[in-house]
Amino acid sequence: MKDFKKKASIANDPWSSWNVGKSGNWDNGNAVDSWATKPESAAGQRNSASNNWEAAAAFGHPQAYQGPAAADDDDWDDDWDDPKSTSPSYLGYKETEASEAGGIQRGNSRAAAMKLPLNKFPGFAKPGMEQYLLAKQLVKPKEKIPIIIGDYGPMWVYPTSTFDCVVADPKKGSKMYGLKSYIEYQLTCTHFDWLYERLLVKFGLAIPIPSLPDKQVTGRFEEEFIKMRMERLQAWMTRMCRHPVVSESEVFQQFLNFRDEKEWKTGKRKAEKDETVGVMIFSTMEPEAPDLDMVEIEQKCDAVGRFTKAMDDGVKELLTVGHEHWKRCTGPLPKEYQKIGKALQSLALVFSTSGYQGESDLNGAITEAGKTYEEIASLVADQPKKDLHFLMETNHEYKGFLGCFPDIIAAHKGAIERVKESDKLVATSKITPQDKQNMVKRVSTMAYALQAEMNHFHSNRIYDYNSVIRLYLEQQAQFYETIAQKLRQALSRFPVM
Amino acid sequence: MKDFKKKASIANDPWSSWNVGKSGNWDNGNAVDSWATKPESAAGQRNSASNNWEAAAAFGHPQAYQGPAAADDDDWDDDWDDPKSTSPSYLGYKETEASEAGGIQRGNSRAAAMKLPLNKFPGFAKPGMEQYLLAKQLVKPKEKIPIIIGDYGPMWVYPTSTFDCVVADPKKGSKMYGLKSYIEYQLTCTHFDWLYERLLVKFGLAIPIPSLPDKQVTGRFEEEFIKMRMERLQAWMTRMCRHPVVSESEVFQQFLNFRDEKEWKTGKRKAEKDETVGVMIFSTMEPEAPDLDMVEIEQKCDAVGRFTKAMDDGVKELLTVGHEHWKRCTGPLPKEYQKIGKALQSLALVFSTSGYQGESDLNGAITEAGKTYEEIASLVADQPKKDLHFLMETNHEYKGFLGCFPDIIAAHKGAIERVKESDKLVATSKITPQDKQNMVKRVSTMAYALQAEMNHFHSNRIYDYNSVIRLYLEQQAQFYETIAQKLRQALSRFPVM
Repeated sequence: MKDFKKKASIANDPWSSWNVGKSGNWDNGNAVDSWATKPESAAGQRNSASNNWEAAAAFGHPQAYQGPAAADDDDWDDDWDDPKSTSPSYLGYKETEASEAGGIQRGNSRAAAMKLPLNKFPGFAKPGMEQYLLAKQLVKPKEKIPIIIGDYGPMWVYPTSTFDCVVADPKKGSKMYGLKSYIEYQLTCTHFDWLYERLLVKFGLAIPIPSLPDKQVTGRFEEEFIKMRMERLQAWMTRMCRHPVVSESEVFQQFLNFRDEKEWKTGKRKAEKDETVGVMIFSTMEPEAPDLDMVEIEQKCDAVGRFTKAMDDGVKELLTVGHEHWKRCTGPLPKEYQKIGKALQSLALVFSTSGYQGESDLNGAITEAGKTYEEIASLVADQPKKDLHFLMETNHEYKGFLGCFPDIIAAHKGAIERVKESDKLVATSKITPQDKQNMVKRVSTMAYALQAEMNHFHSNRIYDYNSVIRLYLEQQAQFYETIAQKLRQALSRFPVM
Repeated sequence: MKDFKKKASIANDPWSSWNVGKSGNWDNGNAVDSWATKPESAAGQRNSASNNWEAAAAFGHPQAYQGPAAADDDDWDDDWDDPKSTSPSYLGYKETEASEAGGIQRGNSRAAAMKLPLNKFPGFAKPGMEQYLLAKQLVKPKEKIPIIIGDYGPMWVYPTSTFDCVVADPKKGSKMYGLKSYIEYQLTCTHFDWLYERLLVKFGLAIPIPSLPDKQVTGRFEEEFIKMRMERLQAWMTRMCRHPVVSESEVFQQFLNFRDEKEWKTGKRKAEKDETVGVMIFSTMEPEAPDLDMVEIEQKCDAVGRFTKAMDDGVKELLTVGHEHWKRCTGPLPKEYQKIGKALQSLALVFSTSGYQGESDLNGAITEAGKTYEEIASLVADQPKKDLHFLMETNHEYKGFLGCFPDIIAAHKGAIERVKESDKLVATSKITPQDKQNMVKRVSTMAYALQAEMNHFHSNRIYDYNSVIRLYLEQQAQFYETIAQKLRQALSRFPVM
């Protein structure tokens, strides 16, 4: 298990493993031309240390979709938990046994279990891609994901009513008295891990499904860590509930509605038999719009790649800066204000021993000024929780989304490459002209899906960043106003001479 | 010359060389019971490193009065300047030749030149002390320093009109157009050094005469250093002009009024012939009050010792804390705000490439918020000059005053010890009962002088600290209000969603 953790940590930056090269080198992940080695971010401040992560491209990482799951893989809910990594009792965790293998390794074995005809054509190694692009007739799936053309271009269809799922500690009896009706689940970490895996497997090439919050607990701050993880799990759950495609999916609805272990097991088996996963998710989509041409498709895909990569850099930069600032605001800075406060009070104490008459007003005022600086120390130390925290969490969440894009873009790029190579295949009669026609239509569907998801992403992004920066500025302004007020109050105590 | 500098630096803390022990070990400075080794400050935070300075007690230091000057010591104005140490052209410095010996070493040679009967009695080694305490009849000096009893106890008589002396750079043509009349001097560093020495020699056992600002210039910040030194020289000069005893003294008036080198040389010779120096300064004082008893005298002296020592600790603590804060406010903190500003602007730049419609307002607002943080960086970096600077300078000035007290208190303690030992001397007929009577009267005069000076000190201290802390709080409040305003302005640019 230790080994698995290490790998997951090395491959922390999904961007480092994403191959933007032209060759469809799908069956091994040797990135030769990744963004990690050729930084092109807007910020231009990418850490050169990321070059070292290039080697990690050979490993999988938790967010990388690795092929459809084996339908008979029945021990998913037993072997995902690493009891060493955490004990978040607030979710009513059952302790489960640690499996021999890390979850990350499962992707390939599942792909193998599907017994897909790998390597039938060179460059068609990625499981599912050939199945989707070259199927004479796509099986009509039960679930359909409509894509309409709205004011901003292709978009998902948003459900008329939305719902939320509250993550709370049942031990603490946190009843949602404000809500008219709610269902209380006894959810375990295993349930969430299973849901994440299912969503990743099913939607991961069309929709960014961010990893669940990290389970690792460092001893000292365990309580704070657990609180933060619960907050992040809540945020993750809210994102899923608000996603028009994810929230309406059968697997998600089933997750929300099971009431006991029996229903859970039944639903789990059913979901794991779902073959509309991986690239096949695009077979459920029917854009109400004419096919796009290949030049436009490729341009749009590249634009998404550039944008998400640049935003990833920007978000990471802000996180780095914010983390530094957090440390200063909670560490040395308040200590210094404390010292200023103490030094003023000490001085006033000395002054009071002078034996000189009529300076008690001054000494009282200096003492109060000293106490004011001690109060300022507390204000400074507590402030990040009130503003920087939310700015950081929002960026952290977006870092999670953005980390999913290398895989998404790789799928799109891969499909585009297949179409480009298809003329040769037609010429050598490996595929028919009709096959090629189908391929173009299906890549066009993928492009619509990408645009629909990007429009969803952008509208959320604009709302989220507007909200969180407003909150940050408002809280910061209040913070400085409070300090100024306290200082004026301290000032008013000084005698005018 | 290098060697002298080093010594002056080692003996930086006058408190470390002050002997509070009972034995009148005057002719060597081996401190065995100094405050440096037994810290008793109110703050209780004295750095243990000061213990190392105990060894420095064997050296003299610029502030230590070492006996009356030799009247024929005619090269004072030539050998005080160390051309290596500075070149403050703003005072119209003439470059003078470096002497072989440092000024600090002169004290003893001057004492020797006076040919005072040293070591006549054990414990009476300090030049002048015996002369003052045991003289059958004190020579009536031309200058008299009255001590009256005011509302707050013994006090100096304040002149009806006061004056100031403006230290300015003649090269910069800084004419004082606002003042009705002023005399412009071509003062050199030598002139100031000479004045300091004369004041120290004459008043140093009754009145704290702080050292002149340090001449040492570190290459990189030469210009700022020179500016600061000029400010400090101005502050020093203002203190002297405002001191009722110093400002009215012949030597100081003469310093202010010479118009050319000829007058200077004449005045200099005259001043250096003055024998009313060192402990003899007390012979010019006639308190209009009955003699104090020895118990009261000793208690008052001890109280002054405790207060000035405790205040010295408090002031140093505030300086240390202030210095740390200065570094943070001008270094890492604005750098961090700069980074936050840059990160926000980078993110807005990325956002603007999204191709999504209708987010230009948000991106403009984020860019402005970023610029606001860059402005805040500048505000933070510039603020210490507007508030902390003055708090630091006031404390620095008081550190200078307080550094003079070990010598002052040592003189008083020494005199008290002599009186205590006098019974033995009477018993062994070394002195007459009338001699002892004179001693008590003269020690009482010293005690009145000490109280008068302390009352002057306290009234200045109360005024100065009240003013500077008020200024500090007012400027700090304005600073935080400005930041809050800027943040609110940035906030107002965000679209409401």
